[in-house]
Amino acid sequence: MSEPAPAVVPVIMCGGAGTRLWPLSVNDRPKPFHAFDGDLSLFQETVRRAAGDAPVAFHPPVIVCGRDHQAIVEAQLAALGVAPAAIVVEPCGRNTAPVAAVAAQVIAERFPGALLLLLAADHQIADAAGFRAAVARAAAVAHERIVTFGITPAGPETGYGYIQQDAALAEGVYGVRRFVEKPDLATAKNYVASGDYVWNAGIFLFPPSLFLEELRASRPDIAKAALAAIPAGRETVVRLDGPLFAACPSDSIDYAVMEKTTRAAVAPCDVGWADVGSWSEVWRLGAPDAEGNVVRGETVTIDTHGSLVFSDGPTVALVGVEDLIVVAAAGGVLVLPKARAQDVKAVVAALERRKAGGAA
Amino acid sequence: MSEPAPAVVPVIMCGGAGTRLWPLSVNDRPKPFHAFDGDLSLFQETVRRAAGDAPVAFHPPVIVCGRDHQAIVEAQLAALGVAPAAIVVEPCGRNTAPVAAVAAQVIAERFPGALLLLLAADHQIADAAGFRAAVARAAAVAHERIVTFGITPAGPETGYGYIQQDAALAEGVYGVRRFVEKPDLATAKNYVASGDYVWNAGIFLFPPSLFLEELRASRPDIAKAALAAIPAGRETVVRLDGPLFAACPSDSIDYAVMEKTTRAAVAPCDVGWADVGSWSEVWRLGAPDAEGNVVRGETVTIDTHGSLVFSDGPTVALVGVEDLIVVAAAGGVLVLPKARAQDVKAVVAALERRKAGGAA
Repeated sequence: MSEPAPAVVPVIMCGGAGTRLWPLSVNDRPKPFHAFDGDLSLFQETVRRAAGDAPVAFHPPVIVCGRDHQAIVEAQLAALGVAPAAIVVEPCGRNTAPVAAVAAQVIAERFPGALLLLLAADHQIADAAGFRAAVARAAAVAHERIVTFGITPAGPETGYGYIQQDAALAEGVYGVRRFVEKPDLATAKNYVASGDYVWNAGIFLFPPSLFLEELRASRPDIAKAALAAIPAGRETVVRLDGPLFAACPSDSIDYAVMEKTTRAAVAPCDVGWADVGSWSEVWRLGAPDAEGNVVRGETVTIDTHGSLVFSDGPTVALVGVEDLIVVAAAGGVLVLPKARAQDVKAVVAALERRKAGGAA
Repeated sequence: MSEPAPAVVPVIMCGGAGTRLWPLSVNDRPKPFHAFDGDLSLFQETVRRAAGDAPVAFHPPVIVCGRDHQAIVEAQLAALGVAPAAIVVEPCGRNTAPVAAVAAQVIAERFPGALLLLLAADHQIADAAGFRAAVARAAAVAHERIVTFGITPAGPETGYGYIQQDAALAEGVYGVRRFVEKPDLATAKNYVASGDYVWNAGIFLFPPSLFLEELRASRPDIAKAALAAIPAGRETVVRLDGPLFAACPSDSIDYAVMEKTTRAAVAPCDVGWADVGSWSEVWRLGAPDAEGNVVRGETVTIDTHGSLVFSDGPTVALVGVEDLIVVAAAGGVLVLPKARAQDVKAVVAALERRKAGGAA
């Protein structure tokens, strides 16, 4: 008889405002709750990806979200027919380390012996089966390690942090020599050429007790304040205490734990991972038509090439344009060249200034 | 004592689908009922322009519109506080000659002795006082002539018909040597250089009885069929009989009367006339900001030049584009270079094919 599949509780963090995806991503309904490819939102795709009985046995997910998004989380889970293990409602954002501590405590109490798989709700992963296989490989060492998933670099990307691998610990899992911040282009090229660097995707697998132990060692203030905000009882909806959680220092898992622990490991994987951060990424990841256009919704394109046309309602018509992004959504209409996709931030900033200025 | 001002009944024809102004101009609310500059629609501007006591005495207007637009005509008149002399409701379109015949008959009965000023609801005229002065000049000969208003050409426009002037009949009013169709560019340049050609704007002033007399002489079939469709009585709303009006031949005043009558005259005027036919025209006629952009509605423009941004609702943001037209309206969203403004027709045709094709 074979070993039973390791038990894993996915924890899906629904942060990420997705400012560069205005006008689709807005405060009321940010990026994780939109569909960019197919019918399911990024959040729903994440729920689907971390489910099933093999090669690991997934429990229902724990969802972490802000107060404003509890209703949309519940609706999108219901649409999938998924009953969550818990919904942790954050009264304010405190970055990932406090969230991971809260989730670890909740899972240690409710699912003794299970591993915690920490996921962001706004990632795309083309090869879901490949990702689950990587989770199974990581599980082989995760009884004594905090395993981070490293993405085989598709190029010398300067927008991500990198992880340098060390010696193999098990099949497909390595020690970590060091974590490095977002590099400049020359450095990124060296990393990619060396072959022992992977992108840090911010996905982790660990035993809840080990994570809490390491956090208590490196940042006892965070561990204490985060756990103090957990209400008593075992309700599905875990509403963190407002003032107590607000009093918790804000920090990322990378800074608070991973760069300090001696018990990190990295599981490299090549699974078509993408952080859908901007409209030019949505175009790049989409399925282009014969003219190189990626279109979604009711659209008309005439003499139009290399463009993204994205509508969540109105008919959008383009004539005689190239390499343009046009998005029509509830929040407004956006038109800009693909090469300027990062400048959506300037639009959002202008709109916020205008709002703050009122009618003046 | 001075002469009393001549009495004039304006007849405002609300035809004109404005296909090239999609997505603002749609079947439910076509071009004349939209505002392009300021708060009033083209129709309302036309009502305002043909009002007052001097230099001619305007009666309230007669409005001619399709069945689908009676409600919007009434609402836009009410917003101006104007009670119309009549609203003639066409069961179908039969071009301008039948409409003019119906209006002439209605006015002959209800306003004996008044002249009829036939206007299109979708023209812009910057100098309204100058236009009224031209109407007064034309009135001096209109007891025995059908006077057409000729627009001093702003350039060798190939999109309009031209009128060649003949000898003066009165101050600022001339005989007509001939009407000519839309010319090619070389011909248009010759016309403009010669100084005795003006644009045919399709605006007419005449005694109703004279027009009916001339129409009966040249197109008795139209005169008979059009007048047969008028219901008995003197209601404000004149609903033309469906089958009878449908049986009337369709023709323009120019073909049916003006090119045949010996009693035409032309009153040239230079009053900032424009037929707002396309979005590039809307840009040309608008008030540009420092970057050469014409904007209307809630808009954000960053590094954007020479563009038209027109929204009747959503926030529209442009970054890093030049000479682009972006329109967001109830009918959809349009994006195309100014130089392609005529191609809006191709978009509308594509949408209609799609509609006709159904879900297949």
